[in-house]
Amino acid sequence: MEIIQKEIRLKSRGRGFHLITDEIKQACPELSKVEVGMAFLHLKHTSASITLNENADPDVRKDMEPIFNHLVPENQPWYVHTFEGPDDMPAHAKSSLIGVNLNLPITKGRFNLGTWQGIYLCEHRNHGGMRSLVITIIAN
Amino acid sequence: MEIIQKEIRLKSRGRGFHLITDEIKQACPELSKVEVGMAFLHLKHTSASITLNENADPDVRKDMEPIFNHLVPENQPWYVHTFEGPDDMPAHAKSSLIGVNLNLPITKGRFNLGTWQGIYLCEHRNHGGMRSLVITIIAN
Amino acid sequence: MEIIQKEIRLKSRGRGFHLITDEIKQACPELSKVEVGMAFLHLKHTSASITLNENADPDVRKDMEPIFNHLVPENQPWYVHTFEGPDDMPAHAKSSLIGVNLNLPITKGRFNLGTWQGIYLCEHRNHGGMRSLVITIIAN
Repeated sequence: MEIIQKEIRLKSRGRGFHLITDEIKQACPELSKVEVGMAFLHLKHTSASITLNENADPDVRKDMEPIFNHLVPENQPWYVHTFEGPDDMPAHAKSSLIGVNLNLPITKGRFNLGTWQGIYLCEHRNHGGMRSLVITIIAN
Repeated sequence: MEIIQKEIRLKSRGRGFHLITDEIKQACPELSKVEVGMAFLHLKHTSASITLNENADPDVRKDMEPIFNHLVPENQPWYVHTFEGPDDMPAHAKSSLIGVNLNLPITKGRFNLGTWQGIYLCEHRNHGGMRSLVITIIAN
Repeated sequence: MEIIQKEIRLKSRGRGFHLITDEIKQACPELSKVEVGMAFLHLKHTSASITLNENADPDVRKDMEPIFNHLVPENQPWYVHTFEGPDDMPAHAKSSLIGVNLNLPITKGRFNLGTWQGIYLCEHRNHGGMRSLVITIIAN
């Protein structure tokens, strides 16, 4: 058994939900040699998140943005943490709602995801910039 | 150390929150030989989710359903992804809110959960059908 | 490779979001010898949760509490599970929204978190008492 770990930088994206499955796969060429294992993704940020969701119809990603804006609206008069802009405190809350960890089982050299599961980067800031992600693979 | 991996099919359940702890335990007879380790559950779907919550009073599971329906209501006029029915887009959002990963520590041959923690399958579709789950155990 | 596992008791805290990074670090002196690995945190409760979020401005933690109270309000007339008090059913829902698992990559003897990431205990009960946490480290 072995542990492989690397840190990658995800390219800067606008606010919204983005499919990054290919970017993650390309960062893991070692995957092809893993018979069975787990990949653990960790996003090193507090105003973005990662999740798995529909990889086919892009309308799902479009609807996710207003759904989460309704859940945690901007400009609530009782927000105290406001000095980084109206998108900041909601971004923190959305990050904890969705989370920054993702676990992907590995089977016969590939991520063993469902047919419709793609990896999303959820960018909750208007201008979040590049995002750092640690990938740790535990393999047999 | 070793990695054990298997894929199981959870029986079809109606929309709602369902206790599946026994179904998971029965799928893992190897557990009894693990002194210390981790089990990683991965649900291969984008309109259902898995979580840990109260295993005693079934009213908790009953209340969960309307709570999540209030969080992500059906039939919002601004939904774009609507062709799979009114329950579909909310199901995607609930899946990312709750998540499809669950990590269970293993100690002395058993899942080391809290007294009140049971494993829930959260079925967010009206007719979701059978659901596939990958279980990966890393054991000493 | 090896697996290290321990169970700790987090000191009792009031309802709200609390930074526990130092408490977790102090519980893991073995960390300094781990070149690369993963730490898996599991909270053994159904009315509290753990997450990563902003470790600098305490106002983020202050705002989190009303944000989650708006998401899952107390005293909804349709709640069925009410016998443990008005804070109980919302606490269960918040626990599943945020989650009780947290994965921390380990790199060169330290948790490899983002600059602004701290570990939060989210106490959703008015009087939750001490909370039990299982820490499992898989190390090379």
